[in-house]
Amino acid sequence: MDSVEIGRELGDKDISLWIADGSNYPGTQSIRKRIQWMEEIFASTHAALGEHQRMLIEYKPFEPAFYHTDIADWGMAHELARRAGPKAKVLVDTGHHLQGTNIEQIVTWLLYCDALGGFHFNDRKYADDDLTLGSIDPYQVFRIFHEILSCPNEAAVSGIAYMIDQSHNLKGKVEAMVQTVVTAQELFAKAALVDRERLSALQSSCDLVAAEEALRDAFWTDVRPIVSEWRLARKLPAEPLRALKESGYVEKIAKERAEKNASSVSSYA
Amino acid sequence: MDSVEIGRELGDKDISLWIADGSNYPGTQSIRKRIQWMEEIFASTHAALGEHQRMLIEYKPFEPAFYHTDIADWGMAHELARRAGPKAKVLVDTGHHLQGTNIEQIVTWLLYCDALGGFHFNDRKYADDDLTLGSIDPYQVFRIFHEILSCPNEAAVSGIAYMIDQSHNLKGKVEAMVQTVVTAQELFAKAALVDRERLSALQSSCDLVAAEEALRDAFWTDVRPIVSEWRLARKLPAEPLRALKESGYVEKIAKERAEKNASSVSSYA
Amino acid sequence: MDSVEIGRELGDKDISLWIADGSNYPGTQSIRKRIQWMEEIFASTHAALGEHQRMLIEYKPFEPAFYHTDIADWGMAHELARRAGPKAKVLVDTGHHLQGTNIEQIVTWLLYCDALGGFHFNDRKYADDDLTLGSIDPYQVFRIFHEILSCPNEAAVSGIAYMIDQSHNLKGKVEAMVQTVVTAQELFAKAALVDRERLSALQSSCDLVAAEEALRDAFWTDVRPIVSEWRLARKLPAEPLRALKESGYVEKIAKERAEKNASSVSSYA
Amino acid sequence: MDSVEIGRELGDKDISLWIADGSNYPGTQSIRKRIQWMEEIFASTHAALGEHQRMLIEYKPFEPAFYHTDIADWGMAHELARRAGPKAKVLVDTGHHLQGTNIEQIVTWLLYCDALGGFHFNDRKYADDDLTLGSIDPYQVFRIFHEILSCPNEAAVSGIAYMIDQSHNLKGKVEAMVQTVVTAQELFAKAALVDRERLSALQSSCDLVAAEEALRDAFWTDVRPIVSEWRLARKLPAEPLRALKESGYVEKIAKERAEKNASSVSSYA
Repeated sequence: MDSVEIGRELGDKDISLWIADGSNYPGTQSIRKRIQWMEEIFASTHAALGEHQRMLIEYKPFEPAFYHTDIADWGMAHELARRAGPKAKVLVDTGHHLQGTNIEQIVTWLLYCDALGGFHFNDRKYADDDLTLGSIDPYQVFRIFHEILSCPNEAAVSGIAYMIDQSHNLKGKVEAMVQTVVTAQELFAKAALVDRERLSALQSSCDLVAAEEALRDAFWTDVRPIVSEWRLARKLPAEPLRALKESGYVEKIAKERAEKNASSVSSYA
Repeated sequence: MDSVEIGRELGDKDISLWIADGSNYPGTQSIRKRIQWMEEIFASTHAALGEHQRMLIEYKPFEPAFYHTDIADWGMAHELARRAGPKAKVLVDTGHHLQGTNIEQIVTWLLYCDALGGFHFNDRKYADDDLTLGSIDPYQVFRIFHEILSCPNEAAVSGIAYMIDQSHNLKGKVEAMVQTVVTAQELFAKAALVDRERLSALQSSCDLVAAEEALRDAFWTDVRPIVSEWRLARKLPAEPLRALKESGYVEKIAKERAEKNASSVSSYA
Repeated sequence: MDSVEIGRELGDKDISLWIADGSNYPGTQSIRKRIQWMEEIFASTHAALGEHQRMLIEYKPFEPAFYHTDIADWGMAHELARRAGPKAKVLVDTGHHLQGTNIEQIVTWLLYCDALGGFHFNDRKYADDDLTLGSIDPYQVFRIFHEILSCPNEAAVSGIAYMIDQSHNLKGKVEAMVQTVVTAQELFAKAALVDRERLSALQSSCDLVAAEEALRDAFWTDVRPIVSEWRLARKLPAEPLRALKESGYVEKIAKERAEKNASSVSSYA
Repeated sequence: MDSVEIGRELGDKDISLWIADGSNYPGTQSIRKRIQWMEEIFASTHAALGEHQRMLIEYKPFEPAFYHTDIADWGMAHELARRAGPKAKVLVDTGHHLQGTNIEQIVTWLLYCDALGGFHFNDRKYADDDLTLGSIDPYQVFRIFHEILSCPNEAAVSGIAYMIDQSHNLKGKVEAMVQTVVTAQELFAKAALVDRERLSALQSSCDLVAAEEALRDAFWTDVRPIVSEWRLARKLPAEPLRALKESGYVEKIAKERAEKNASSVSSYA
């Protein structure tokens, strides 16, 4: 409730609700009672929302809870959002799925139901590894963007909040962020290249290989030159990673922080 | 629609809809258009249902479709059932989940939403292996039964259709069926032994180990003697597998079929 | 043993051993005894091999066996090959791994041990779906090729048999094969573009993002024009899928087969 | 090397090597070079071992490394142990496997190769959750014990070091340990009840259901009374969890620690 109030004061649109609760062992908690508690807290949160505020309900199959997480998948998040009210939407963290999940299909369903509130973008090979976007499976990210661009419901698409939720335990934080933004731009540009009218006709006639190749043609096109031009036209660096390196920004803020920290006493680095 | 009509004529309660459709490769079909088609066919099926008929919508993450299955998880089945109408419920096939899915949690959610139409029981270690119930993970089946028995909504529970959906490619068909029924009876009896009032109190006080042990005590109790007595009281064989073997039934019908088939000409064995 | 003899007569190099055996339920077979049987049959098969023959041992975690497959992973295949003798190598089917397996790492280990006999190429999203190569995760195929090209042991690499093992239940068989060959050529060309000397230096200095980008630069390069030129230089069609379509070959053989089949009586299509 | 020396001084038998290293992103490290480094460090560690020392090599598919872990599965650990020398064995942490892995089969292979050094016992539903033993899938633990008890190679079995590797973030540490020891005793007792001679005969005659039921009969037998008697005969508490609670031990040491800590200054809570 505090966050809702702070968000309203600041004029923020979205309250992102990540409920990590659940239980670690069978029998230790009542799954059913906890569903009801979730319904109740989301109802009261929804009631407190300002006119232009939304609440985004995130889901995750496991971790930190190890046996059952209260909101484990998109179906649970969607049901809770529906019961809470029209300002409640679902937040998709791309790393919060069991192995094998077709994430772009979930995105399409949420758009179909006008229930997609936004993304937490990252990538992973195993669990919720919070790696930089597209670093493990770039074709999947491309397919997610393709589904968004294929959605005829403009209102549903315009409501998507695009966020990055990564953890950079070896890569430099700023460098990794720039890398992800560049990747997102390029994969989005590839998805924008799909000739959707032609693709739709090939899908309707079940011309499977031609339809698949129409999608892949866009993925295999090297969009780096046109995305660089797009950046230059906006007075942005053509190659952001190189520009970051040449700017010396990371070294500069690291030095400033070191100096600031040198004079303070910290109990935990 | 033919099935609905046949079901009505026969006085059957449930039409079980298992839609295997989807696509094998990204781009070959429009995921979104197919959602709409699903919504339309379920609406017209629902409209054709008789007063006492229900339709059960099954979900499955993959196979036979290899990239996307139109109804891939309980969230999609639940959304389609909700849109179709009050006679549409969700069917849970225990083998139709990605690795790691908490199935008893899904069962609890469907009961909470009064949306559980029934089960297709089986077990599996990997994909949809259709093995005999409880042969791989009996504790999971016990937990599913425990959630059903813990549900206070009697109407939701009374609507559950219990079905077995197995494929016996090495075990004898009748033998495997008897084995599954015996296992279901015993695991259900174990779940019925849980002291739910005490468990609920332990859960509320977060006495985690005691709560877990309350559940496990029931699982570790050897219920075979009392289930045998229960059978005897109903003039059923105390040990169904032994009774089947001693009856010679399997050999008898195998011989009868062999004789019948000997006189017929078959183009496909 | 018949296959070994036939292979020797024909001058074939490789006998590919795919042992589908195992068990469907815990307790129904002795895992240990069956290991010994595997060791024995591979020893006698190895003894029967001609001077220039090899035997390739394939592994698979599940299906058709549902509880335990005798040769379930590369470790088991590798141990059996080692015990059988120097002509026994391991065969990697890219679809025969549990979800999340790092396949390129296994390839690297087998090359390190000079134990990689060959590949059965295909792709999958879930189980052993036998989809066309690179249709689900092309970046993974690229990484496999990159590991092969990075291997300094030329003898180990030269022994790799490249095979395709796909099942085309919706795509046309010839079309799907051409699509896979084209994809393999292009992904291999991308892997060949990696500046391995520079990459190695970046890896040694732990310049993580620069190293990763060196790999990705090659993946994002559009190699279709140079691969087309390579084909033209060998008097092959620049665009094989288009050439196949324009040739009318598929329609021609379909017609020929239909005519041939019309005059025959078949009991099972 | 320090650990080897310390272990030798203390007369410890086993050095347990858990190598968490690897890489987080494709391309950032050379998988091949790192294999060689692993081989080298294990060779020098093995050379430093005292006459009665062993080294146990642990494997894990992911975490903390997110793209590739240097020793990702039993095959890699086994190969490294074999290259290091006869005092090197493999350590199986039950939680260090991809979803769906048949762990008892790996245990059987390691016993067959006389390469099983020991266990880190725990349970998990998803990743490496370090839950108490048998809390998620007790039938699997029973099957692991069954394979150990079925191994005719007494030397291989006698070399197994049984260890517990759990993390109790909600359960009390001592309570959870006692719970795991009790569970291990009971599941081991169940496995000991299997009539292995009869089971072997049923397996040989492919009497599948009877063989499976022979295994399950042991699992379903309530061994808690005889294990309690076994404890009483050794002057141990019949019900360890109850005895722990009644002893007040946990409260006592918690109080002692609180007093001790009250007088110290800690920089990190």
